Amino acid sequence: MDTRTMKKRIKLIRYKLNKSRINCLIVTKPANVTYTTGFLGDDSWAVITMGQVYLLTDSRYIEQARKECVGCKIIQHVNSLPQAVAKLAKKLKSVKTVTIEKSTSLADFEQLKKIVKARLKTSANVIETIRSCKDSNEIAAIKAASRVAVKALKQTLRYIKPGITENELAGMLNFQIRKLGAANSFDTIVAFGPNASRVHHQPSIRKLKRRDTVLIDFGAKHKGYCCDITRCFIVGRPTAFYQKAYDTVQKAQTAAIKMIKAGVEISKVDTAARKVIHKSGFPVYGHGTGHGLGLEVHELPVIKPRNKSKLETGQVITIEPGIYIPGKLGIRIEDDILVTKTGCQILTPPQFGAGLTHNCPHTPFLRAK
Amino acid sequence: MDTRTMKKRIKLIRYKLNKSRINCLIVTKPANVTYTTGFLGDDSWAVITMGQVYLLTDSRYIEQARKECVGCKIIQHVNSLPQAVAKLAKKLKSVKTVTIEKSTSLADFEQLKKIVKARLKTSANVIETIRSCKDSNEIAAIKAASRVAVKALKQTLRYIKPGITENELAGMLNFQIRKLGAANSFDTIVAFGPNASRVHHQPSIRKLKRRDTVLIDFGAKHKGYCCDITRCFIVGRPTAFYQKAYDTVQKAQTAAIKMIKAGVEISKVDTAARKVIHKSGFPVYGHGTGHGLGLEVHELPVIKPRNKSKLETGQVITIEPGIYIPGKLGIRIEDDILVTKTGCQILTPPQFGAGLTHNCPHTPFLRAK
Repeated sequence: MDTRTMKKRIKLIRYKLNKSRINCLIVTKPANVTYTTGFLGDDSWAVITMGQVYLLTDSRYIEQARKECVGCKIIQHVNSLPQAVAKLAKKLKSVKTVTIEKSTSLADFEQLKKIVKARLKTSANVIETIRSCKDSNEIAAIKAASRVAVKALKQTLRYIKPGITENELAGMLNFQIRKLGAANSFDTIVAFGPNASRVHHQPSIRKLKRRDTVLIDFGAKHKGYCCDITRCFIVGRPTAFYQKAYDTVQKAQTAAIKMIKAGVEISKVDTAARKVIHKSGFPVYGHGTGHGLGLEVHELPVIKPRNKSKLETGQVITIEPGIYIPGKLGIRIEDDILVTKTGCQILTPPQFGAGLTHNCPHTPFLRAK
Repeated sequence: MDTRTMKKRIKLIRYKLNKSRINCLIVTKPANVTYTTGFLGDDSWAVITMGQVYLLTDSRYIEQARKECVGCKIIQHVNSLPQAVAKLAKKLKSVKTVTIEKSTSLADFEQLKKIVKARLKTSANVIETIRSCKDSNEIAAIKAASRVAVKALKQTLRYIKPGITENELAGMLNFQIRKLGAANSFDTIVAFGPNASRVHHQPSIRKLKRRDTVLIDFGAKHKGYCCDITRCFIVGRPTAFYQKAYDTVQKAQTAAIKMIKAGVEISKVDTAARKVIHKSGFPVYGHGTGHGLGLEVHELPVIKPRNKSKLETGQVITIEPGIYIPGKLGIRIEDDILVTKTGCQILTPPQFGAGLTHNCPHTPFLRAK
């Protein structure tokens, strides 16, 4: 992270804090700590005052902090983070009220309450709403993560053959991501056959059969930024029923993507996808149609029914409708999309999947080796 | 998880709740939800009353919950978890006070406060202290996880050769764990040369040199139970300095392990390891000497200075002293140990590492291929 970007972020955050009459914010959510300091480790908090940004960390991370932090003062503590905050707050005489992020645990909050002399308040989503709109560097990082992910998937597809387990396939995909110098953005989901109807299925020792379906939901992380992609495959020829369901999901995704544009109400994007599936007679999925992503794989905004907020330029969201029939099948297609002033841009490469720019009318087939 | 084990756990928890005059506990920490329901997914809460255990989950997890849950009632919600709790609390007329785990976020707590009519209290570590002592099935699961981990490491060592990146090696190890039907218990740390001085180093694109050191900190997960192992290797011959540091860490670990026995004050185990390193003139590590592990990779008890609590039979802890010299080297040896009435039992297989039962006086060498 360069100094200029960091200064811009902090300026924007201070502007928001000022408007809410907050002059000291304790940042406890790891992604927000990264966003405000550049630090990519765990177990550390940031403190933002009107004059300074502090990173509170311990000996395990001190070397990393010195390497990664931009424009902030690093404080190494030996006890707990709440104690480190109390000590700092004592020094900062101008701080009368300390505000802490609502993602903090009750345990930390109660400990803080006992030892901090300043008044304590809570606040939600100050940094998250700023984070939801990405700058060009962030978008480039998500794009790079997507490129890595799809490249890794390409490599992995060569290993799909009857007999391989979900676990092995997930492991091979993760390995290919590592080989390309990136990390996973979350635990890879690989589900064969009816296992795919469990949206958050954990890869098991189930073996791939000679005529089987494969759902892969995964992502890579580049410079801290995540992508999130789901693709479905068939070994052999799909049944007419599977093909119909797949086509419906793809149509639903296309319908939602077509709606995306800055200023559009989020619920309308959600509805566009659900409507296609509902009309086709398939059961409508219970999860949201998508979510923001960036430093976290789930960020603001949430693309769900009744979300009356509007899409903003620079937001990056997933669109991932699905059809799930327990014991029978699970299909989901997911791409990452940048909201622009005039519409949107699909950041995930079109291989093996959906996306308006890509002519992919049919499920990709994999021949059993 | 079998019904008998689950009943025993719930009985023990209810006994503790009764003593604290709690008749309804909201369990929000994922590992505690698993412990009390058998459910291995995320984003779900459990509610324990004197007559029933409930799992509150959403459509994404409903199939999984039905498969995994033991002895509890599954409630599928469509809005938020706090709303689901409020709805349930309304039905349970005998519940006047609802207690929630302190690991809950402030956001969820504040939302609950607004909508739950019963009084709200917080409580810490009710389930964590019970979880810290493992039964024979849990110990068997940790042992199985360790066997998988070491087998995977053995396979991976064949790929260590100059030119391989930290990232690739980590990816290969994770793949081998998957191939054996298990999952990672946390993000694998692979650090070459001086990178190992960063305790929580994230694998990078740094390539292994012809004379280099390797630190690997990793674990496998079997039936939800974690192991946590650190091993150090050398490509070629070690320098006298590295060898001296390695031997010191090993002595420190042995000294700590020798102290382990039910009833022993935890700080004494910690001190035993630190003393060896301090006496040798090397800098003493800033992290704890170890931690409990089970459903989580970090559990109670924490093996650290000034922890006056006593070890208990059935606790499983890591012992992991280290020596870190920024820019020069990092060495850590970590094994998982069961506390017994008469002493302890090392659960991690002795290959490539330390452990009182294993004659491993020297750093294992790897020849460059």
